[in-house]
Amino acid sequence: MSTNLWQTLRRAESLFGDRPAVVDGGTRYTYREFAHRCRSLSGALQADGVRAGDRVAVLMANGHRYLECYFALPGMGAVMVPLNNRLAAPEHRYILEDAGVHTLIVDEANADMGEALADCVQRVVLGSSAYDDLVASAETAALPVATQDDDLAGLFYTGGTTGASKGVMLTHRNLVANALHIALALEYTSGDVYLHAAPMFHLADGASTYAVTWVGGCHTFLPAFDPATAIDLLAQHRVTSLLLVPAMISAVVNHPAAATADFSSLRLVFHGAAPINTALLRQAIDVMGCSFAQGYGMTEASPLVTVLDHEEELVDSPRLRSAGREIVGVEVQVRSEDGSRVATGEVGEVVLRGPNVMKGYWNKPEATAEVLIDGWYWSRDLGYLDDEGFLFLVDRAKDMIISGGENVYSIEVEDAVARHPAVVDVAVLGVPDDRWGERVHAVVVLREGTELSLEELRTHCKALIADFKCPHSLDVLAELPRSGAGKVLKRDLRERYWGDSDRRIN
Amino acid sequence: MSTNLWQTLRRAESLFGDRPAVVDGGTRYTYREFAHRCRSLSGALQADGVRAGDRVAVLMANGHRYLECYFALPGMGAVMVPLNNRLAAPEHRYILEDAGVHTLIVDEANADMGEALADCVQRVVLGSSAYDDLVASAETAALPVATQDDDLAGLFYTGGTTGASKGVMLTHRNLVANALHIALALEYTSGDVYLHAAPMFHLADGASTYAVTWVGGCHTFLPAFDPATAIDLLAQHRVTSLLLVPAMISAVVNHPAAATADFSSLRLVFHGAAPINTALLRQAIDVMGCSFAQGYGMTEASPLVTVLDHEEELVDSPRLRSAGREIVGVEVQVRSEDGSRVATGEVGEVVLRGPNVMKGYWNKPEATAEVLIDGWYWSRDLGYLDDEGFLFLVDRAKDMIISGGENVYSIEVEDAVARHPAVVDVAVLGVPDDRWGERVHAVVVLREGTELSLEELRTHCKALIADFKCPHSLDVLAELPRSGAGKVLKRDLRERYWGDSDRRIN
Repeated sequence: MSTNLWQTLRRAESLFGDRPAVVDGGTRYTYREFAHRCRSLSGALQADGVRAGDRVAVLMANGHRYLECYFALPGMGAVMVPLNNRLAAPEHRYILEDAGVHTLIVDEANADMGEALADCVQRVVLGSSAYDDLVASAETAALPVATQDDDLAGLFYTGGTTGASKGVMLTHRNLVANALHIALALEYTSGDVYLHAAPMFHLADGASTYAVTWVGGCHTFLPAFDPATAIDLLAQHRVTSLLLVPAMISAVVNHPAAATADFSSLRLVFHGAAPINTALLRQAIDVMGCSFAQGYGMTEASPLVTVLDHEEELVDSPRLRSAGREIVGVEVQVRSEDGSRVATGEVGEVVLRGPNVMKGYWNKPEATAEVLIDGWYWSRDLGYLDDEGFLFLVDRAKDMIISGGENVYSIEVEDAVARHPAVVDVAVLGVPDDRWGERVHAVVVLREGTELSLEELRTHCKALIADFKCPHSLDVLAELPRSGAGKVLKRDLRERYWGDSDRRIN
Repeated sequence: MSTNLWQTLRRAESLFGDRPAVVDGGTRYTYREFAHRCRSLSGALQADGVRAGDRVAVLMANGHRYLECYFALPGMGAVMVPLNNRLAAPEHRYILEDAGVHTLIVDEANADMGEALADCVQRVVLGSSAYDDLVASAETAALPVATQDDDLAGLFYTGGTTGASKGVMLTHRNLVANALHIALALEYTSGDVYLHAAPMFHLADGASTYAVTWVGGCHTFLPAFDPATAIDLLAQHRVTSLLLVPAMISAVVNHPAAATADFSSLRLVFHGAAPINTALLRQAIDVMGCSFAQGYGMTEASPLVTVLDHEEELVDSPRLRSAGREIVGVEVQVRSEDGSRVATGEVGEVVLRGPNVMKGYWNKPEATAEVLIDGWYWSRDLGYLDDEGFLFLVDRAKDMIISGGENVYSIEVEDAVARHPAVVDVAVLGVPDDRWGERVHAVVVLREGTELSLEELRTHCKALIADFKCPHSLDVLAELPRSGAGKVLKRDLRERYWGDSDRRIN
């Protein structure tokens, strides 16, 4: 039995052919029109020599053309390689060469980069006009190519620097499984209007792409995140659901336009990247008036693993600090280094399995063997499960600080620091220290017009967490370096303190 | 990656351990207790010599012990063989021998039959006490055995007579897929309380078994259908969802107790077997006040294929006569005999594919090859699709009668009737019946100078086939209409009984 991701669009076209698939600025396509464009793109690329198994990279801002690639490329048996538009040319070059990309599809916003990378690939489709010409040029629309469950649908690169970046091989079966899991977990229906607000190159947003299509929902787009535009689009398109990272939620609810905005169509804000600050959640519930859910996952899991839903009912519960529970279809355990399961409440490494778990890392069998063991994916995240299966993440294994022989989990310290009224953003990391080996160091962004001394911060923290966990040093920055998905780039912060020498593996 | 159906119960135990799994009369088990009983049953059967791959048959009325078998048997790698308690001894005997059943589990209500069948199997677990003793005897609870996706979880027999009955091989992957599909289609959540009202040996009810468990819902039971008891249980257990066949819906809403009953907990009545009569639907909406959905499927599809949901919004729509649309996860097409797709609105054979489609018929490679072609299952049902993918069935598998929710194959009844010495020719078909939906009706040609009463025919048939398959009405003709090739023209016969009005079969 062959499962092709194209089935998600095929169903939408058969059942909802006359209903809107995309609304993108002034462009509107029904599912029939949208599927036709996808078939045409496949046909044109085939005519251009792209064959099943070939890699095709996409470097674009959010929009309907990006969405077309999500269906046309796997549909024709090609392997989609989404590129993070915040990467530098050498990073892109590494990915294009590592993946052996045949064709690169680029929009105007990334035209310079596309030109700079032209020598890495056989063809660049440069700009929306060229893209649309290509679609229009297809004489016959290609049918989706038969695939096996285990065939690759996408290569999603994690990390950013050339040494560390790995291509996560996701198969048709992986992404079909995630689509079913997330549709069930987030209750998507044909009535949904989904706004692609976070970058589409990242699976945090991509997670919902196939699910929303499969049930016949409508896609709308924010080309680049901006709170004012987001607020406008939510009302204009009667958006029902979207993914935002907490920093985006904060930007929306603190925007002057939020007070008078129309959020009445929203049923769900799904957020990833970090547990939500209680004060921010209260504010967001008050302002946006919808349901909130948090997801935990990773590219290697296609990506969704756990969901904490109905956070609006948990504002007074300690479980608001959790990442939620395993979704239907994914099994989560916490294990010690020897591979055995730890007791409820004990910290260990989060491991998981399910049909959504990646096939492996592209051309990296050793890296694959390190994390895929007996069908389980070892996430390198540290956490514990409570007695009802709520997962509490305490740190990335690599971010755990060992200070004076004690394990300090940076997330716990960050939670404590974040509760200080002057703090708007925080990252905690270990820095070299002659006496302690590593020292707990806080980097904060302060509310405008406020100040914060180390003494005051320590006094604040000591009321909340053990003395040895409290920061021993403090830096104030104007803003924290973040990834496209909104995660703090601790790697970048660490480089300031560890330099190139003698630092731990990132 | 191994997928075992046990994962559905494992998740419920981890996440909802202290919440109710089953409420069965005075018996209540939490998910922790229920999972423990299932592990104990597995352990006891293993100690008794049952190994992975062995077949274990179940002949019981609805109840928590039946539900335990649904998890314990696949969980230990055994193959569950549910038996229809309305079959006659020779029919059971055929199934037990065809499947090579190791152990037969029987309750008090079927004790006589169990004793009569004891020589067919290595062991009979006879009665609830013996069953509970077995569970209590397990010294160590068995863990679920690792399985492959393609390993059998159940053998579900269709039909009844030795010639026609086939064991449908459903794998772990098939039933896991259906559980995901149906959970999404029927929106099951941990808040659901599901009443097993239709027989649990049939996948029409079994369809929801794994889904309700996976999301952490609660199971309640009606040992044998009776409208008064059903009405009582709905209120008493605050039931939210159940499957009923239209005849059962009719019995419930026409019962005197319905007028004052408390149906307030109900969110969904799911019905199968036949489209619902508009007058009955109006009455049911009025009386029960919940949402109604129809499902179309077959054992070979594990079973769900299409759903027509929110029928309460379709009472004035011609689409109420449809079987609904393909659910997420299943692809439906209508094809002509040459294998090509027919146009929208044209009648052809319903074919489908998906991870829910059976592995094949047990020990019947030729029968399998007739219906499983290039990954598609050919249903032998005739129908057409409208322009939005609604499936309209115009003929069931051409000889099948659905009477009171039971499938009756006319060829099998014809075989029995034909053995009567007075009968020289026979055709059996379903005719409209207010109570049963369809009634088994026999049309016969008699030997010259003989007579045959309905009573005499029924007495004759009851010795050969199950009671529910025996004709309930009889017409005598001088000859049967036949085609040039000698086939009885059932279509012509049916027109006498179905006329042109509001019918769906020919």
